[in-house]
Amino acid sequence: MISDSRTSAGVDNISSYSKMWRYGVPGQRQFVICSAGNLATTQAVIAALERDIKNTEETSLLNVTDMHQAAEYIGKISVDVQEKAGGGSVFESTFLLAGEILGSQSALFMIYAQGNFIVSSSQVPFLQIGEMKYGKPILDRVIQESTATDRAVVCGLLSMDATLKSNLTVGPPIELYILQHGSLTLGRYRSFGEDDDYMRDLRKLWNTAMEDAIDAMPLLTLG
Amino acid sequence: MISDSRTSAGVDNISSYSKMWRYGVPGQRQFVICSAGNLATTQAVIAALERDIKNTEETSLLNVTDMHQAAEYIGKISVDVQEKAGGGSVFESTFLLAGEILGSQSALFMIYAQGNFIVSSSQVPFLQIGEMKYGKPILDRVIQESTATDRAVVCGLLSMDATLKSNLTVGPPIELYILQHGSLTLGRYRSFGEDDDYMRDLRKLWNTAMEDAIDAMPLLTLG
Repeated sequence: MISDSRTSAGVDNISSYSKMWRYGVPGQRQFVICSAGNLATTQAVIAALERDIKNTEETSLLNVTDMHQAAEYIGKISVDVQEKAGGGSVFESTFLLAGEILGSQSALFMIYAQGNFIVSSSQVPFLQIGEMKYGKPILDRVIQESTATDRAVVCGLLSMDATLKSNLTVGPPIELYILQHGSLTLGRYRSFGEDDDYMRDLRKLWNTAMEDAIDAMPLLTLG
Repeated sequence: MISDSRTSAGVDNISSYSKMWRYGVPGQRQFVICSAGNLATTQAVIAALERDIKNTEETSLLNVTDMHQAAEYIGKISVDVQEKAGGGSVFESTFLLAGEILGSQSALFMIYAQGNFIVSSSQVPFLQIGEMKYGKPILDRVIQESTATDRAVVCGLLSMDATLKSNLTVGPPIELYILQHGSLTLGRYRSFGEDDDYMRDLRKLWNTAMEDAIDAMPLLTLG
């Protein structure tokens, strides 16, 4: 899971908020959630998820029995929050939910503002929310079900960097979280600030690689 | 100038129309126009441009004195056509206009639906209209004022191919027109159909280059 941290209400009202949340009980269940859309809706949904855990409610991320039920639960909270705010597209948020529960399958879901959701598959090996168009072509060209995690991480970071470069409403820090299927342990986390050495090297090397690759392409012969 | 040819009114109502028009008088003036947006508006604007030429009207592409005046003229026609249709965003079209007029400077303009326009510059060496986000990152990374035409053509075709791959509302044939600054002669034109050999080779080589480039990037070390 990779997310940026830019929140904007117009170009003159920009803040930095994490859009990634991680929950887990080692050996039992692990979740990571990312959000896009209305910040108040997002924060209210996350607050409700955490309140339900704290109050040991009948349904919470700590007692849903499979990932499908977890997605349904988050979707319902999101719809309730939006209705309470008055409804309409301005209050919409979408979520990515990845995780695994002991005795059930790991899964990656995209939860729409309407509360319904779709799951990734071998034909759809990645999902995106928010400002997704700039970063989609590189994912489309590279990511397959069989893609190794190392390669997927580089590709995902380059996809996010392309979006940062092309759109002011996407900004650092970038957050990365890798949940290892089957391990049920905390994932590996890394945050990349504006001046992160790795991201700066990656960006520079990638720009050079792009230029070299274009120079290596066959030139078009025109009359 | 590079354009696709897909026109859609929903995914079940897809047609192929050229979105590129070329006009010129050798040694005097050369223009190329591309459009995005409402097809009826676009066709009405083009019909008006051609009617004004045929009827040797007081103002037409054949007697405007500089590119700025040409952009203003097209913008006014576009606004008139949209108003006649009833106005509103559904009737909007945007245009790219490139060209040169003897005794004046060559220029590239983007003409908004509102009839106003912006010009390219050394800081903004390319302009896009329509479904632009998918194809923008590669242009952002590669195209500069100093970029050679050959490299710009490859980069532009890859940008268009990325958009085709990621969005159903963009489709072949792709059209390419290269106007040589200062020549005032007809540009070089090429149309690329769905099975075009060059585009197929380019796409395949580029996918391989992307994968190789990603494999050559430094891997991230995580705890």
